[in-house]
Amino acid sequence: MRGKVYIVGAGPGNFELLTLKAYRILNEADVILYDRLVGEEIESYIKSLRDKEVIYVGKERGEKGERRQQEINRLMKKYASEGKVVVRLKGGDPGVFGRLAEEMEFLFQNNIPFEVVPGVSSVNAAPVYSNIPLTHPEAGFGFLVVSGRDTRRLSELAKSGTLVVLMGGCTAKEVASNLMESGINPETEVAVIERGSFEDQRVTFSTVRGLTELENDFTSPALIVVGGVVKLAKKYSRLIGLDKIRDRKI
Amino acid sequence: MRGKVYIVGAGPGNFELLTLKAYRILNEADVILYDRLVGEEIESYIKSLRDKEVIYVGKERGEKGERRQQEINRLMKKYASEGKVVVRLKGGDPGVFGRLAEEMEFLFQNNIPFEVVPGVSSVNAAPVYSNIPLTHPEAGFGFLVVSGRDTRRLSELAKSGTLVVLMGGCTAKEVASNLMESGINPETEVAVIERGSFEDQRVTFSTVRGLTELENDFTSPALIVVGGVVKLAKKYSRLIGLDKIRDRKI
Repeated sequence: MRGKVYIVGAGPGNFELLTLKAYRILNEADVILYDRLVGEEIESYIKSLRDKEVIYVGKERGEKGERRQQEINRLMKKYASEGKVVVRLKGGDPGVFGRLAEEMEFLFQNNIPFEVVPGVSSVNAAPVYSNIPLTHPEAGFGFLVVSGRDTRRLSELAKSGTLVVLMGGCTAKEVASNLMESGINPETEVAVIERGSFEDQRVTFSTVRGLTELENDFTSPALIVVGGVVKLAKKYSRLIGLDKIRDRKI
Repeated sequence: MRGKVYIVGAGPGNFELLTLKAYRILNEADVILYDRLVGEEIESYIKSLRDKEVIYVGKERGEKGERRQQEINRLMKKYASEGKVVVRLKGGDPGVFGRLAEEMEFLFQNNIPFEVVPGVSSVNAAPVYSNIPLTHPEAGFGFLVVSGRDTRRLSELAKSGTLVVLMGGCTAKEVASNLMESGINPETEVAVIERGSFEDQRVTFSTVRGLTELENDFTSPALIVVGGVVKLAKKYSRLIGLDKIRDRKI
């Protein structure tokens, strides 16, 4: 029998935001290779499953991404060639800043059958869990998603729509400075969402200017939302409270 | 007892891309108000649930969106004030072009407790099910999501990253023309994804120039991906085949 690799989006970390499909495939898998970003709830869950090899493949402190990726590739190939069903479990949606292209390329080159399963992206979950709609008829015409790891080219668009910056915890101040330089109104609303969708999610509301003046970094991976849509969130917090993220388990 | 409204993302339509949370809440609800975009599989499923009122609230042909929204608001208020658990089920993720802001505003004004549950957005699912990673180290620095209903302001950014156009079926040619005018390379790759994640998903590969010359419209709601990331998709199709979207049901 021939093995297969499923590259599966685990969603933003909240257990109940796993899709039915991810849940089924995790239960059917022989081997699960998982990242740090899948979150503690899901990590505990997969470790509790029986008769599976569950292997942590996240980066160690100071380790180079390239080297880690080679090790992941080696494991995928090893187990697939033994005929096993392998789940490569990634935080969020695998297509968004998740090295999906590199892993597909490797599997393709090695003639290993694979399938990619989308997940709830933190691009969506973190704003929703913070009462921020990503689009609004009066708040521009769309949204731009960039990685906080490359903050150099924040464009004209940030002025007219919503800007979402992933993995912006450490670079929040840099993002804000670049936006100021690009001519954005310094009073434009900003929300920094740490641990989006987790029980201890924390939302900091500020402005672009305010962000440049903050003393501390945010915990990684934080998601930054810039634009008028943030205004709404503050208003609705009163009614909604935090009960929305204390989910019952199935 | 006081009622509550859950605004729930149903995902892109494939049943198994419901989240565990959406699945649980649908089973606990007293009333389900659902849109056309939730898809046939999920529609059949919710209709098969016992002891629930399941009401279609999608737009009728030719009906004004504003009027339809008033009717939805009326129903949410009516059932919530009867102390019922109401699910407002929306296609994709509720925060993306889904009138989330308007519905939150209405519930807030009427002091009705509510909670928003994110879903897998077609922004993510359709590309993933077409083997297109939304980001790639060599394909710009992020992606821009716009609605096909407003194609006037496609910016500079489309040249350097990935552009995702939702609901672009009817305006695909217009989108392409605007991109040409904005100075994009006419040979830039394009994928038009109809019925993303459904069993009968159809992907049309072309270029920006090619799209301007197509004779027929695409079925709505189609998702258009523009950029170098599309190149990869064609390559991988051979290995992956369509088995990925014929999912077993739980």
